[in-house]
Amino acid sequence: MAIAEVTIIPIGTESTSLSSYVADLQKLLQEAPENIKFQLTPMSTIIEGSPPDLFAVLQRLHEASFRSGAKRVSTSVKIDDRRDKPSTMDSKLKSVEAKLGGER
Amino acid sequence: MAIAEVTIIPIGTESTSLSSYVADLQKLLQEAPENIKFQLTPMSTIIEGSPPDLFAVLQRLHEASFRSGAKRVSTSVKIDDRRDKPSTMDSKLKSVEAKLGGER
Amino acid sequence: MAIAEVTIIPIGTESTSLSSYVADLQKLLQEAPENIKFQLTPMSTIIEGSPPDLFAVLQRLHEASFRSGAKRVSTSVKIDDRRDKPSTMDSKLKSVEAKLGGER
Amino acid sequence: MAIAEVTIIPIGTESTSLSSYVADLQKLLQEAPENIKFQLTPMSTIIEGSPPDLFAVLQRLHEASFRSGAKRVSTSVKIDDRRDKPSTMDSKLKSVEAKLGGER
Repeated sequence: MAIAEVTIIPIGTESTSLSSYVADLQKLLQEAPENIKFQLTPMSTIIEGSPPDLFAVLQRLHEASFRSGAKRVSTSVKIDDRRDKPSTMDSKLKSVEAKLGGER
Repeated sequence: MAIAEVTIIPIGTESTSLSSYVADLQKLLQEAPENIKFQLTPMSTIIEGSPPDLFAVLQRLHEASFRSGAKRVSTSVKIDDRRDKPSTMDSKLKSVEAKLGGER
Repeated sequence: MAIAEVTIIPIGTESTSLSSYVADLQKLLQEAPENIKFQLTPMSTIIEGSPPDLFAVLQRLHEASFRSGAKRVSTSVKIDDRRDKPSTMDSKLKSVEAKLGGER
Repeated sequence: MAIAEVTIIPIGTESTSLSSYVADLQKLLQEAPENIKFQLTPMSTIIEGSPPDLFAVLQRLHEASFRSGAKRVSTSVKIDDRRDKPSTMDSKLKSVEAKLGGER
């Protein structure tokens, strides 16, 4: 599994609030196939899936912001793709926590 | 409060595992002053504080990776700074959830 | 046309030098269809094309780093997609320069 | 020298054009001390300097967007900091070009 962190900013929106755009993207993700996992953070949405699935979802999210009314969109994505051993959102957090716990 | 999302990648580490570097940064944050809040996600660390406090913390985190052994570091930061009304990690999530809940 | 800025960092490479990976990506782009324009900067590669073409190229670049030997890859992309009027790498620079020149 | 790539997006601007904000940042950089080098690309501004100088400039650029009228700002920064040998904007490009040229 690869993991992507995505932030989509509509530009020229008059309002400084973007939460309705973010909510639209969450609804889209809730309809995504089961092999896609996702979680919202205060700064972005993290998505887990196979690389081809991830790129397809990212493109759909990018397009969706225009349907929500944006005329210009800045989409930032960071993808962490590890192929020497399995890696998930969960396993990454646990790996750090194990290192922190060992010192307490 | 401004909110920053930061990912620090040491380059040329031999190992593909970076969790010990991430753990070192978490320890540094645990010692940060109380006006700095932070949370670890599977892809980055999110930090909340005043803009000057945030920039100071970001610089300290960036430097710390060299002390952890890195010879080259790629630090990515995204800062969301809103000055027309208060904004926190919590309030941002709640604002999206309110929009999602309203439709259920 | 949409414009993407992409940086691909192989993780766990032993060497702190990444230029051979960057060169491999440039060769791949030199073979891209004519409707894809690109330019290398000191920090990333900027690519111009239609949104579907861009996403296809980005996925191909991401995959290519594994063929160049990486076992883990961090790919960062920022896409600027404007649909209210044409926008190119060239027009964006000229628009800023016009504003700077006007004040001299 | 470390090298930073920075993009500053004002949010809630009514206009989809951001070039006047970008021009303001360029003017600020033109007044920066001589030990700071910078270049504008179609997607961001690349800045070269010592790490402390870089963080100071980044903070000043971030603040400047509010003085230009923004009420909310999204600032993205990527810093490449290499301490095992000298690295500049120029040397990074030349290193890739040398690898490309060698195969022609």
